[in-house]
Amino acid sequence: MSDASFDVVGIGNAIVDVLSHVEDGVLVAQGLEKGAMTLVDAARAEALYGAMGPGVEVSGGSASNTIAGLASLGGRGAFIGTVADDQLGRIFRHDIRAAGVSFDTPPATGGAPTARCLIFVTPDAQRTMQTYLGACIELGPEDIDADLVAAAKVTYLEGYLWDPPRAKEAFLKAAAIAHGAGRKVALSLSDPFCVDRHRAEFRDLVRDHVDILFANEAELCALWEVENFDAALQATRGQCAVAALTRSEKGSVVMADGDVHVVDAAPVARVVDTTGAGDLYAAGFLFGYTAGRGPFNCGRIGSLAAAEVIGHIGARPETPLRALLPAELTR
Amino acid sequence: MSDASFDVVGIGNAIVDVLSHVEDGVLVAQGLEKGAMTLVDAARAEALYGAMGPGVEVSGGSASNTIAGLASLGGRGAFIGTVADDQLGRIFRHDIRAAGVSFDTPPATGGAPTARCLIFVTPDAQRTMQTYLGACIELGPEDIDADLVAAAKVTYLEGYLWDPPRAKEAFLKAAAIAHGAGRKVALSLSDPFCVDRHRAEFRDLVRDHVDILFANEAELCALWEVENFDAALQATRGQCAVAALTRSEKGSVVMADGDVHVVDAAPVARVVDTTGAGDLYAAGFLFGYTAGRGPFNCGRIGSLAAAEVIGHIGARPETPLRALLPAELTR
Repeated sequence: MSDASFDVVGIGNAIVDVLSHVEDGVLVAQGLEKGAMTLVDAARAEALYGAMGPGVEVSGGSASNTIAGLASLGGRGAFIGTVADDQLGRIFRHDIRAAGVSFDTPPATGGAPTARCLIFVTPDAQRTMQTYLGACIELGPEDIDADLVAAAKVTYLEGYLWDPPRAKEAFLKAAAIAHGAGRKVALSLSDPFCVDRHRAEFRDLVRDHVDILFANEAELCALWEVENFDAALQATRGQCAVAALTRSEKGSVVMADGDVHVVDAAPVARVVDTTGAGDLYAAGFLFGYTAGRGPFNCGRIGSLAAAEVIGHIGARPETPLRALLPAELTR
Repeated sequence: MSDASFDVVGIGNAIVDVLSHVEDGVLVAQGLEKGAMTLVDAARAEALYGAMGPGVEVSGGSASNTIAGLASLGGRGAFIGTVADDQLGRIFRHDIRAAGVSFDTPPATGGAPTARCLIFVTPDAQRTMQTYLGACIELGPEDIDADLVAAAKVTYLEGYLWDPPRAKEAFLKAAAIAHGAGRKVALSLSDPFCVDRHRAEFRDLVRDHVDILFANEAELCALWEVENFDAALQATRGQCAVAALTRSEKGSVVMADGDVHVVDAAPVARVVDTTGAGDLYAAGFLFGYTAGRGPFNCGRIGSLAAAEVIGHIGARPETPLRALLPAELTR
């Protein structure tokens, strides 16, 4: 195995978030499922945008948030995903590069605009997401840069990739390249509804292709169709080498080679918007993992990164995360 | 004079702001004049954007911020300004309408994209703005809806309109319509560098066309080429019926029909970003003015609106401003 030029390459949907504060009544009036990510077509996205208050646009996307967080911690990250050649696509490209991430996937040419995610933030800081995939549906195996994947210690994939039609081929190609080069493959389950849509495939993936699994409690229960966290934890045992399982304010549980570690959440002065909490936990965990930290410390770094991002609106860090690490956890 | 359908119609540059936190060193490295609004061409805007960190996009523009603030207070506002038929233009249109403002100016067809303002926010909460005017340069007298202007109690214009080539014709047409209908005309001087660019014209305007003048201390000193606030105040006397003069944390001074009122600033827990402070002061003042409040209370409402907007990133209110008013100042 040659030296790695990157710590993590992320593959995911390249999305610009449109965030707006709403009262709960808006969710009811629009028939939106609170806390979920729902896929919508262009017409529905347009109608929902019309019903939404004034918004703020920020680059988003689950795996891209993770890689931006990794870079903010001081890690070396790259991203693969498709935007269109339009204003939102240029914003996405600018922001992820400005965060210090390598991003060179050529723009899609199929005519669909850059993806956007309408995020309705309710007063309880929960977010309800309506995603129009746009140009993301064009991601395919031809977009996987084999040299890049082989040069990264970890290839990180978001479960949402199972929604656009050809991205799973890209995923499997990337996983094969990574393992062929002696690297690791990580997967985030993304959200419980995404797990419901793709449960059988996700179970096969976790068993056959994934070295490091990220999931929250609801996602893991959905994966194994069990009712409580401990049952889900036991079902995960033996499925993959590492599982990093997040539980909101209860912290996280990390299972690594059969041992279980319990990690507390990091304190947050005021939870403003939970968007990106899981993405940033994964960023911190992978930063630690690729630096050779043990499972407990990987979880600690994940908690610190997640705590920063839920203290403000938006799913990418506002302050350099490396400054939040205790000295013994920096590189 | 017929009943007014609108309290205020604003005419200004329709701009999407791109905000990013930077250290002071970035301003030095890029040769940017701190605190100023500088006009840049497309190539320079592109180069500066490349040097900027990850950003947040929010609808902006001075007069449009003011009208959005007026609507948030419960006033009836309309806006005239030109965007392009592009993604940023649709964002601008969505946001101002979602704020409750009437906005029907057709998109420009000249090919330039929607204007954007790159805003570098330094740790002292100051903003340094680099504006690419894009489609704004197409605003002309043909965009002035005479019925709309005649139906608004106040026509409000930003001084920045003197920068694009034909907007001043639009301004003068609007002022003539407003006065012909027995309405009032208000002007904000926008910024001291804008005043430097157009001093002689601004002096004529204030004397001959403006009923209500908004200016901060630096702008007013630039207008009269004097060294201190009191000298600027004395020079303003007799020039227009009302002058609302803002002084940051020192509050504001309102001169109305020769009488002078001194208004304290409203308290702010933490100043995060001063972008929009003057715009929102004008929103509050005009909300009071069009409701028939006296000069002191108009200034108080202005101070309350400004205090909200400097407590967060972005130049438009995040909370409904009407909720911040003491009961005796609501409608």
